[in-house]
Amino acid sequence: METLLYAQLADTLIAQIRGGVYKVGDRLPSVRSLSKREQVSIATVNSAYAILEERGWVEARPKSGYFVQRAQSVQIGKPRTGEVTSKPRAVSTKELALEVQREASITRSRNFSCAIPDLQLSIAAVIQKTLTRLSRQGTALGQGYDSTEGLFELRQQVARRGIDGGVHVSPDAIITTLGAQNAISLALRAVTKPGDIIAVESPCYFGLLQMIEAMGLKAIEIPADAETGMSVDALKLAVQQWPIKAILCISTFSNPLGCTIPDNHKQAIVNLAVRHDLCIIEDDIYGELQFDGPRPKTIKAFDPDGRVLWCSSVSKTMDPQLRVGWIAPGRYYDEVLRQKYTNYLAAPSLPQAVTAEVMSKGLYDRHLRQARLAYKQRSEQMLDLAERYFPQETLASRPKGGLVTWFEMPRRLDMTELYHQCRDLDIRIAPGELFSVSGLYRNYFRLNYANEWTPAREQAVQSIGDTLKSMLVSR
Amino acid sequence: METLLYAQLADTLIAQIRGGVYKVGDRLPSVRSLSKREQVSIATVNSAYAILEERGWVEARPKSGYFVQRAQSVQIGKPRTGEVTSKPRAVSTKELALEVQREASITRSRNFSCAIPDLQLSIAAVIQKTLTRLSRQGTALGQGYDSTEGLFELRQQVARRGIDGGVHVSPDAIITTLGAQNAISLALRAVTKPGDIIAVESPCYFGLLQMIEAMGLKAIEIPADAETGMSVDALKLAVQQWPIKAILCISTFSNPLGCTIPDNHKQAIVNLAVRHDLCIIEDDIYGELQFDGPRPKTIKAFDPDGRVLWCSSVSKTMDPQLRVGWIAPGRYYDEVLRQKYTNYLAAPSLPQAVTAEVMSKGLYDRHLRQARLAYKQRSEQMLDLAERYFPQETLASRPKGGLVTWFEMPRRLDMTELYHQCRDLDIRIAPGELFSVSGLYRNYFRLNYANEWTPAREQAVQSIGDTLKSMLVSR
Ligand SMILES: Cc1ncc(COP(=O)(O)O)c(C=O)c1O
Ligand SMILES: Cc1ncc(COP(=O)(O)O)c(C=O)c1O
Repeated sequence: METLLYAQLADTLIAQIRGGVYKVGDRLPSVRSLSKREQVSIATVNSAYAILEERGWVEARPKSGYFVQRAQSVQIGKPRTGEVTSKPRAVSTKELALEVQREASITRSRNFSCAIPDLQLSIAAVIQKTLTRLSRQGTALGQGYDSTEGLFELRQQVARRGIDGGVHVSPDAIITTLGAQNAISLALRAVTKPGDIIAVESPCYFGLLQMIEAMGLKAIEIPADAETGMSVDALKLAVQQWPIKAILCISTFSNPLGCTIPDNHKQAIVNLAVRHDLCIIEDDIYGELQFDGPRPKTIKAFDPDGRVLWCSSVSKTMDPQLRVGWIAPGRYYDEVLRQKYTNYLAAPSLPQAVTAEVMSKGLYDRHLRQARLAYKQRSEQMLDLAERYFPQETLASRPKGGLVTWFEMPRRLDMTELYHQCRDLDIRIAPGELFSVSGLYRNYFRLNYANEWTPAREQAVQSIGDTLKSMLVSR
Repeated sequence: METLLYAQLADTLIAQIRGGVYKVGDRLPSVRSLSKREQVSIATVNSAYAILEERGWVEARPKSGYFVQRAQSVQIGKPRTGEVTSKPRAVSTKELALEVQREASITRSRNFSCAIPDLQLSIAAVIQKTLTRLSRQGTALGQGYDSTEGLFELRQQVARRGIDGGVHVSPDAIITTLGAQNAISLALRAVTKPGDIIAVESPCYFGLLQMIEAMGLKAIEIPADAETGMSVDALKLAVQQWPIKAILCISTFSNPLGCTIPDNHKQAIVNLAVRHDLCIIEDDIYGELQFDGPRPKTIKAFDPDGRVLWCSSVSKTMDPQLRVGWIAPGRYYDEVLRQKYTNYLAAPSLPQAVTAEVMSKGLYDRHLRQARLAYKQRSEQMLDLAERYFPQETLASRPKGGLVTWFEMPRRLDMTELYHQCRDLDIRIAPGELFSVSGLYRNYFRLNYANEWTPAREQAVQSIGDTLKSMLVSR
């Protein structure tokens, strides 16, 4: 496919510029010679150069060719993560988390703070049409309460989708929930009591840390690698040292790192859980949003005896306002069901029916194909913009799926201050402070790249960069 | 209004028959003489007699007049409630509660077990139309997460409706929830920690008892009078004797008794709470379903300092599948909001938008007028049927609002057995066992009268009666 060829070629050239093969001012190979060397058409080379020009890497000089205009600025690589395992700690209360949540629905052109999908992809119209049709038919009303287990048709779809991730459970082993947050909350209520210690990856999505605190639990932070996620060695040490009750981890395209635990590590984590009789709460909310290749395996795929509680939702793939999620709680089924019943009796039926319908009609899969491509391109554009506008000192993660990128700044900078300064400019970012229970990431921040790049959004990234630069100067 | 006159006259005559003024076989006054005595039209008397005949109280003998066919069988009055306050106890786990919930949506003609409203009243069409219209307009989608506080338009409507119950709070003091169950669950999480003791009325809706258990709390049962609800004296004693943390009560048209705490008792309970620095969680879910007169005051109306957490929902007035409820948590606002955030981030938007729309258009009030009349008549019909078909020994509550009646049988009978025997007949009742933490009500059961009386439903009541009679004989 032509599309992929020229994009690949552009990637290769950018990598060469980044790697110093061509420096600022250097002339790049002519279109003809490149076409010959790479064995692609002239059109493909022209398209690749057009992308490079578009993104500000090269300058076209009439009759002379393409010249490198800027070299690497932001380093794409591994932001450092916590290097030592923290002691178990109560998560401190953070008004900030609530504020970030509250402001999640402001103008999308200036909003980078929440991990919200692009809600203008064509799935939006599909959801709306399905909703209208089911409403008109009177589906999901007039039947009293939905069962606490949740709508069967949805559980059936979830069971079918699970297979791609190596999850083999029947619809009767699944309980629907109000999104993944609620699935994890029910899971924690089922397997812990206040005071218990939960192992989480570090950095970790703040919604989970806040939950742990509100439930009176303690979190122990296990350092995560920006590419392979939760460190198995650190986890091993922690489990030996502390009476850990459960491991909670975002197994695939984690938030905020965008990293995925490799299969052999997933297996190792399960082995560790078996040896120490722990349970694993798996947050797989980004599992189907890979940029390339097949959908990664879940931890649940390695579960030998029902100790993995697999949690997910359609908040990142359809619309978070639906609040549709699920859990396959393994051996903890009864207690999770009981927690759902006592918390809210049953979930609203209509959003479940809509989700089941969209999935069963194949519209969900069609959407995922489109979304994966869009998010891949937008993540690259995010990094390009960061390279163009952020200070040299910036380190950025390169996600392979999901919706967010994680940025590291020099240790002397406080990204909570960046958050406030951006807020004054009506731009929202997620400050790193939120992602740790022990203040590890004050010089980090997270940006969402899911929305289409518009001049306004690009300008917002520039403003973030300008703010960062002025903070660097004044420190 | 003619309607009310003849219904009133029928009531009077039934009361006279019950009171023994006319015995079985007696001839009732002629139409003409009754018309004169009661100063009503001939048509009114004819209608009243038609009702009596319809309900099986009298027999019309051509040319001779109306003769009493049956006298009182079931005693309408006060089923006994727990007479002594129990010690604090863990609520024992009951599979039964989950089973009752799971089977809540079986054929309505044979279902008396759940407190579900009549879902065929005209509000159903209103909800469906509104839902379809809002879906078509794309309301409540595509905006990321709803705020954790909940949809403003709904909070505004709730604030306005509250005024009738003496609740004066701004929309900003209200948080939307997933029904009343969830409101109460968030309230308990905000004000208690595991091991704490909660005072509940006895008998008490089992969903609340199950919640208390699942949260690791203890319940202390305060006897409730079948007409005036939670005993203030017993509560006073309990509060002096035990370190009670919160009072949880269904203040108006309670479930299962149908009783309402009088205003002076509401005031006394608040005074007690102030003196002992307790908080009060008020479940006001039936507050707007009075049969006659104005809407009763809430406990919140007497709240001097924000210690009452007012909870309610539209599950009994619109459709429980919407899962729309709310809480006005007073001084516990921050902690309740935090609990909602960590439990499920935000509620689904569409059901909230639909509810706000139906309320703001005046359609909710119009529906309530219809529903109150329907439920009043159906509750009377329930008692009439019980009188006709249930054993003489039956005692029944006479609710003045809400959806359920509470029946007491001789102590030697086990209504959990009735539940199972009825279940074999594909009829559902709610066994009394569920309504206590200390086994107080095994000889009681609860029936829902909300649905229209059809021959099939009447026959189901007869079957329940037959089962009861055969249980009496065999014991
Ligand atoms: C890793 C992770 N888990 C859970 C959630 C919550 O998702 P839901 O809307 O399904 O509750 C999010 C949302 O940001 C997330 O990023
Ligand atoms: C007294 C009482 N409280 C709460 C509930 C739960 O209501 P919701 O559906 O609003 O959660 C019920 C439902 O039966 C009830 O009767």
